[in-house]
Amino acid sequence: MFRNHTCGALRASDIGKEVTLSGWVQKLRDKGFVVWVDLRDRYGIVQLVFDEERTPAELLDKARHLGREFVLKVQGKVIERTSKNPNIPTGDIEVLVSELEILNKAMVPPFTIEDQTDGGEDLRMKYRYLDIRRNPVKNNLIFRHKVTMEVRNYLSEQGFIEVETPYLIKSTPEGARDFVVPSRMNEGQFYALPQSPQTFKQLLMVGGMDRYFQIVKCFRDEDLRADRQPEFTQIDCEMAFVTQEDILQAFEGLTRHLLKAIKNVDVPSFPRMTYDEAMSKYGNDKPDIRFGMEFGELNDVAQHKNFNVFNSAELVVGIAVPEAASYTRKEIDALIDWVKRPQVGAKGMVYVKCNEDGSYKSSVDKFYNQEDLAAWADVTGAKPGDLICVLSGDSHSTRTQLSALRMELAGRLGLRKADEFAPLWVIDFPLLEWDEESGKYHAMHHPFTSPKPGQLEMLDSDPAAVKANAYDLVLNGNEIGGGSIRIHDKATQEIMFRHLGFTPEEAKTQFGFLMDAFQYGAPPHGGIAFGLDRLVAILGGQETIRDFIAFPKNNSGRDVMIDAPAKLDDAQLAELHLKLDT
Amino acid sequence: MFRNHTCGALRASDIGKEVTLSGWVQKLRDKGFVVWVDLRDRYGIVQLVFDEERTPAELLDKARHLGREFVLKVQGKVIERTSKNPNIPTGDIEVLVSELEILNKAMVPPFTIEDQTDGGEDLRMKYRYLDIRRNPVKNNLIFRHKVTMEVRNYLSEQGFIEVETPYLIKSTPEGARDFVVPSRMNEGQFYALPQSPQTFKQLLMVGGMDRYFQIVKCFRDEDLRADRQPEFTQIDCEMAFVTQEDILQAFEGLTRHLLKAIKNVDVPSFPRMTYDEAMSKYGNDKPDIRFGMEFGELNDVAQHKNFNVFNSAELVVGIAVPEAASYTRKEIDALIDWVKRPQVGAKGMVYVKCNEDGSYKSSVDKFYNQEDLAAWADVTGAKPGDLICVLSGDSHSTRTQLSALRMELAGRLGLRKADEFAPLWVIDFPLLEWDEESGKYHAMHHPFTSPKPGQLEMLDSDPAAVKANAYDLVLNGNEIGGGSIRIHDKATQEIMFRHLGFTPEEAKTQFGFLMDAFQYGAPPHGGIAFGLDRLVAILGGQETIRDFIAFPKNNSGRDVMIDAPAKLDDAQLAELHLKLDT
Repeated sequence: MFRNHTCGALRASDIGKEVTLSGWVQKLRDKGFVVWVDLRDRYGIVQLVFDEERTPAELLDKARHLGREFVLKVQGKVIERTSKNPNIPTGDIEVLVSELEILNKAMVPPFTIEDQTDGGEDLRMKYRYLDIRRNPVKNNLIFRHKVTMEVRNYLSEQGFIEVETPYLIKSTPEGARDFVVPSRMNEGQFYALPQSPQTFKQLLMVGGMDRYFQIVKCFRDEDLRADRQPEFTQIDCEMAFVTQEDILQAFEGLTRHLLKAIKNVDVPSFPRMTYDEAMSKYGNDKPDIRFGMEFGELNDVAQHKNFNVFNSAELVVGIAVPEAASYTRKEIDALIDWVKRPQVGAKGMVYVKCNEDGSYKSSVDKFYNQEDLAAWADVTGAKPGDLICVLSGDSHSTRTQLSALRMELAGRLGLRKADEFAPLWVIDFPLLEWDEESGKYHAMHHPFTSPKPGQLEMLDSDPAAVKANAYDLVLNGNEIGGGSIRIHDKATQEIMFRHLGFTPEEAKTQFGFLMDAFQYGAPPHGGIAFGLDRLVAILGGQETIRDFIAFPKNNSGRDVMIDAPAKLDDAQLAELHLKLDT
Repeated sequence: MFRNHTCGALRASDIGKEVTLSGWVQKLRDKGFVVWVDLRDRYGIVQLVFDEERTPAELLDKARHLGREFVLKVQGKVIERTSKNPNIPTGDIEVLVSELEILNKAMVPPFTIEDQTDGGEDLRMKYRYLDIRRNPVKNNLIFRHKVTMEVRNYLSEQGFIEVETPYLIKSTPEGARDFVVPSRMNEGQFYALPQSPQTFKQLLMVGGMDRYFQIVKCFRDEDLRADRQPEFTQIDCEMAFVTQEDILQAFEGLTRHLLKAIKNVDVPSFPRMTYDEAMSKYGNDKPDIRFGMEFGELNDVAQHKNFNVFNSAELVVGIAVPEAASYTRKEIDALIDWVKRPQVGAKGMVYVKCNEDGSYKSSVDKFYNQEDLAAWADVTGAKPGDLICVLSGDSHSTRTQLSALRMELAGRLGLRKADEFAPLWVIDFPLLEWDEESGKYHAMHHPFTSPKPGQLEMLDSDPAAVKANAYDLVLNGNEIGGGSIRIHDKATQEIMFRHLGFTPEEAKTQFGFLMDAFQYGAPPHGGIAFGLDRLVAILGGQETIRDFIAFPKNNSGRDVMIDAPAKLDDAQLAELHLKLDT
């Protein structure tokens, strides 16, 4: 037996007990006549004590020579501490050790196993097994487990069945790039790893499974941006015999449950906003609505006044930054430099200080009088003391730039509070989006998303205007889930594939099984998928997903701990009927 | 809204209600003046009625032209049935339809959607989405969900944390063959899909995570035997600061809980048996102990009697088949033919009929008298009315053959009862097993399994005799779980790798990260992994795993529904820096 208590369990009520504990040496303090050792496990820290008076000399000496992260098993008696530590749950007691066994020695770890470590990201990833000993990472993983248990139990109680779909499936060149798996038994052929179980969950609906979910790994071979992982986890869900409203209700229920169970936050009902409204009010299809600063479109009040920059712009749009009229010239110049950075890409920024006395001071006073600027304040909702920031140019870019500025300023002003949760449904997404690179329309969501009733015909005349039965769930400015009502008849699916540039043969080769299935009695159906990594990070009040993943990959898709990927034996390649083409 | 009740929900108490239902046409009976339609969904079947008296002519005509598996939405009134059907829960009522919408038509399905279908395995797999509509398959998937929920909730309550480990890891040529994944971003390099999360769960123990589990897909690129899948699901578990006894207790607890919660079966305590005992008593390391027929070794009483077949055999071993003395000559000959089949491989079989009058009649009466045969009966535990079957030859093959015969006869005699559950721990497995093909010792469990204390030294002198801290959980003659106490120090792990034929360089390249981790304070740890597919099938009282998997692959590793694996575009291959070598 290695322990009958954990290191976090002992209290004053245990005083007098003989206990056996196992754990790691967190810290050792040697005062000569007394040695204290902090012993740590997953559950906490307990203080061990050895002293000249009560501890045999040999044992005291052994304790003295312990090192950080040594693994110990000890027996001893729980005694009251003379100087108590109110900061830890075991702070009232210590364990007077009578037997000490070193279960394993440890080299000095490459970084400190403390909440605030001296290890940089690279070192922490290489020795992730040590990093996981640290409370912040350990607690994130435990938190993730709690969230997934809540998700599973909630959905299961709602009649959803978790069904495992296959990982070795078929590559479909449409969409993101697949990871592929050569088949040894089927020479020259490959499986693909799923980017999502999309078609399988639809087939489960055709199969009558009616309420499906799965917490499942998905794979995308994309060039990795910061905080993207080649393998990621989805809460994948699908329902049959439902309208969009049924789905929004069902998964608002799940999200509300999580907010309550995990964060003790009540959100009675989630607001909804169309995609068009989100774009015009926030320049963003996943607006953070924890704070205001809604866009005010100024074309009507700012054009035709001899200011050519505005007059030639498709869109003039501003936000009122609360209590920022007091920004110095230097601060405002820095803001202008910020929006002109290539990552944002604005050409410049016009500003208006709304003075406390009701007057205005702007960078374009030459062109606009006080009355003009008062109109701007009216449109942007600026109050005395606010700063109006105005950008102009083509509509799409300008909105995107102003959205970036809005988020940046909200961050600086402390308006993006980690403990505040503002969910939002964004609905009525466009069905298609124009892809500059390929010069084609792509499915904004995926090729299985249904157009709004009666809009199918517009695919020929005005494809960009067709709206989809598609929705995203946004939480604090992050898309945490997205889904749609699917196409469930072959004819519509064929039209959709045609508009996405598939030949009938390509559609049949890649998705023939799905269109076949639609001919055997497919029910109306739809669903949603949540990004679990992101959801857990946001619920945990953090920005990056990496520390909610036990063994993440770096931005080159490498696992630096195990050093993967790696070269294969020639024999392995030969068995797979492959040659390198390097 | 598509429905306010499901098709299985309505009862006599609902009579008079206006309801909306959606589902599939299971069956249509047209009696001219009345048409009945059985409407089916996941939850059951409800009878719809249309008749000349109460249904508008147009609607009656529409109902008459419905086809099997059409998808309908209906509105109507719940009425009492004149002739009730006690066989289905909704049998007291029917729904008099007032509105009928065909949500989707259906072609005639390629096989009947009935509990007993006319579809063969191949057809069912190609149209698996239709197969899933059938109760047996649908109920298996729901059953699987229930089992996994029980597993997760039980383990979570016991303090286990589910941690997701990566799917894109590193190939290790040791053991079974890996599926590999070429890396586009790391030219000429490959990931491998995990055969199990073994090293990661050990690293979690090094990381202090102490009680881990994961229900996780694993992958093995083996030539597929019947009822093997290239991707399969494990309940993967690991604990730190534990002895073997702690682990057996913990997972006996899980299994006991499942038997109780899922099958309402109480098994107070699981028997244990050493590997050596299992082999000598049952010729099998996963004995089915729902019935007796234990092996009786007859060397002492059957050799040195002029019967050369036995005299020259390493082992003479028999079983007493209950109440089989009445087998006819023809039946016994058929049994002898059965053991001589190449799949079993015995050279012949000696038998003794234990007559009800206490006399014996054997196929070797020439060599053995009644007293000799009485001794055989004594050793095998045969009673009057039993048949003793005796095989001989080299020990290993003979035991294997007799084990096959024992299982076959138990099946014929109805002793392998699907509703009876006999779990068994088999412990003290050998550490190594000799592999004829490679002429080397392999790890019987895996290279991370620890030898019994004090036996490490025997690796040089008598490797085959070294026992491991390894154990299997056997249920009804199937290995449902297996595990071990792991090595947790670098020196022992190095010795183990050396004995398995790794050079120090190979060990370092492949498992350097693990041996590094062992130097930073690895705790004693061990674990177990359950084969979920098999476990669920056995709990479900069935022999094959395939119908507990939503979308299984066939014996060539193909998904015949989606037609995977498949060829890749040349462009995809080029991006992966690969050429086919065919």
